[in-house]
Amino acid sequence: MAYGFCSLRPTLTSLFSSLAPTLHWRSSSLPISRALSASTVPMSSSSFTWDDVLQIGRKESASTQNPSSDLTEFLAKIDRCNRGSEKLAEFIPFVVDEQIVGYIHKGFTEYLREFHDIFTFSKNGSVSVVGGDYVTLNLMFEKPEDRTRAVAGVIKILGDKGIIPGIRNELCPVKPSFHAPAVFSLERAAAPYFGLKGYGVHMNGYVERDGQKFLWIGKRSLTKSTYPGMLDHLVAGGLPHGISGGDNLVKECEEEAGISKVIADRAIPVGAVSYMDIDQYCFKRDVLFCYDLKLPEDFVPVNQDGEVESFKLIPVAQVANVIRETSFFKANCSLVIIDFLFRHGFIRPESSGYLDLYRGLRNGNCS
Amino acid sequence: MAYGFCSLRPTLTSLFSSLAPTLHWRSSSLPISRALSASTVPMSSSSFTWDDVLQIGRKESASTQNPSSDLTEFLAKIDRCNRGSEKLAEFIPFVVDEQIVGYIHKGFTEYLREFHDIFTFSKNGSVSVVGGDYVTLNLMFEKPEDRTRAVAGVIKILGDKGIIPGIRNELCPVKPSFHAPAVFSLERAAAPYFGLKGYGVHMNGYVERDGQKFLWIGKRSLTKSTYPGMLDHLVAGGLPHGISGGDNLVKECEEEAGISKVIADRAIPVGAVSYMDIDQYCFKRDVLFCYDLKLPEDFVPVNQDGEVESFKLIPVAQVANVIRETSFFKANCSLVIIDFLFRHGFIRPESSGYLDLYRGLRNGNCS
Repeated sequence: MAYGFCSLRPTLTSLFSSLAPTLHWRSSSLPISRALSASTVPMSSSSFTWDDVLQIGRKESASTQNPSSDLTEFLAKIDRCNRGSEKLAEFIPFVVDEQIVGYIHKGFTEYLREFHDIFTFSKNGSVSVVGGDYVTLNLMFEKPEDRTRAVAGVIKILGDKGIIPGIRNELCPVKPSFHAPAVFSLERAAAPYFGLKGYGVHMNGYVERDGQKFLWIGKRSLTKSTYPGMLDHLVAGGLPHGISGGDNLVKECEEEAGISKVIADRAIPVGAVSYMDIDQYCFKRDVLFCYDLKLPEDFVPVNQDGEVESFKLIPVAQVANVIRETSFFKANCSLVIIDFLFRHGFIRPESSGYLDLYRGLRNGNCS
Repeated sequence: MAYGFCSLRPTLTSLFSSLAPTLHWRSSSLPISRALSASTVPMSSSSFTWDDVLQIGRKESASTQNPSSDLTEFLAKIDRCNRGSEKLAEFIPFVVDEQIVGYIHKGFTEYLREFHDIFTFSKNGSVSVVGGDYVTLNLMFEKPEDRTRAVAGVIKILGDKGIIPGIRNELCPVKPSFHAPAVFSLERAAAPYFGLKGYGVHMNGYVERDGQKFLWIGKRSLTKSTYPGMLDHLVAGGLPHGISGGDNLVKECEEEAGISKVIADRAIPVGAVSYMDIDQYCFKRDVLFCYDLKLPEDFVPVNQDGEVESFKLIPVAQVANVIRETSFFKANCSLVIIDFLFRHGFIRPESSGYLDLYRGLRNGNCS
């Protein structure tokens, strides 16, 4: 299942459920987008080659005057990152320090009920931010480090049982919004099971030659545990606990593409994209901080950490075609590149669906 | 009243009202923003000089290392464009062809009731898009041109009475969203009284010298009927009926700044900002398409239509200070420049309130 980030099927369903409070899903789709996407190159594939990529990019460039004028397929890529809004009611808030910090599937809460000394199940309205039922931590855990330790014990057991697969031994902060202090830290692989807000830094590296812009595109290593063999922009990484976006970007630039700090420091923060995606028990609520880095014409990226198989420099209009015509790109990277297409004028207000697509890039809770 | 766009005070209030359907106001504000804004340079002024502008820009640049690290004052500028959400319930939908195309203040509807052969007042749920009461046009007007003519007659009378001041004899399209066909056309000065969606093109013109970016800033003519003497970015204009954003931008570039078509065609569409602002009977629901134009270093804008008094080229960081420290800029131009600050890395994710401010730039219904 190359596309899924949640490998567990729900075994319990809830017949009666209420909408999660404070959460809205802003639908961006033109109604035709899903229907048409079936007509393009098959969705899932990590077995394509660079030749396939380049051929699809060039073919479309040649066939139409303005390859980005039909935005339907771009909208389908945004839909791909924003699935499951109809299942919102299957989740209940996860509350710490009277703030909603996540959402947990009612089916998944059954695994947590065993740990009643750590998790508490509360009813209707006993904290002001929540109207209905919610899950919280036992109040005896007052300090973030105590909570981190207690929950880590639970995650270890669920990891060993295979209920939470792919444990990475990497902590991410639990907080209601980006600049709020963390209420504790949680194993990265468990974050979507708790519906935490996740933050990442994603960088498009580009080159300008004779007025034409090119993007450096990476192909992920086939040995990578997530999305092996798929396309990626130049540098990306989740934001772990205790490092700023800028510092993390410099670190990822070095590891993923061999970009020195001197060059990486020139990367420009340009905004953010966001999405909310429900896949079985998992609820991703991600905000990706976007960066642009204009690279010297003679720069060639060299991967240092084995996570990228190879890189290619491709004209932006051809990258746009590959996003429209295939699902070769890791899904959330499509959003970051579509945002680049907007900011660099490759998508224009004259195209029908321009504002729908633009709004769709920030469908998630961008906070 | 330099800041108001609605010069009529409501004379009738409604005691019982319901929230307008399909309309949500996404609040962006940090709670402290309004309190702090009182401490800056007095809000209203069209009597400042370029010396005042340059002095304020430079003073702040010198006094802090990173002039954009505190985003509170930028948030206050966004609040300025998004007033009156608490008065949403005083408006009822304006429906044409079973689509909501605007919102009319209940007090203002009293002026329309006289014209019962043109406007119809309907009750609760008789069209699917509206839950409560609404105003529509008499069904005998089937064609857009018939509606345009009929409503124009009403606007003429209300204009002569001073109920709708500042008639411009310029039509704007009435439509539920940007790419939808117009259901009729309405005098521009009347648009906020009907809560129509309004669209504009706004362009930042910038120059790069030795790696430093400068923005061309205009000071509006003192004889202009709206916002005389205030600051503006290089080119802006409302989108009238029957012209594309790109073509209108080229036209405005020529009229406002003497920019030839050859240069104007290089302007890059980079996205949009939006806001919803209630001022007495008026409800602005605006979407501004933003453009960047990188100008030759030796380019000097020359106004052709008498609407701009003069231009100055100012370092971007200093422009940012002027926005933070004063209200010299026409309010919605602040949004377009703050968007520029985001896209060009002058505002960084490390600053507290980054995502709140970013979200705030598209507080209105961006469709």
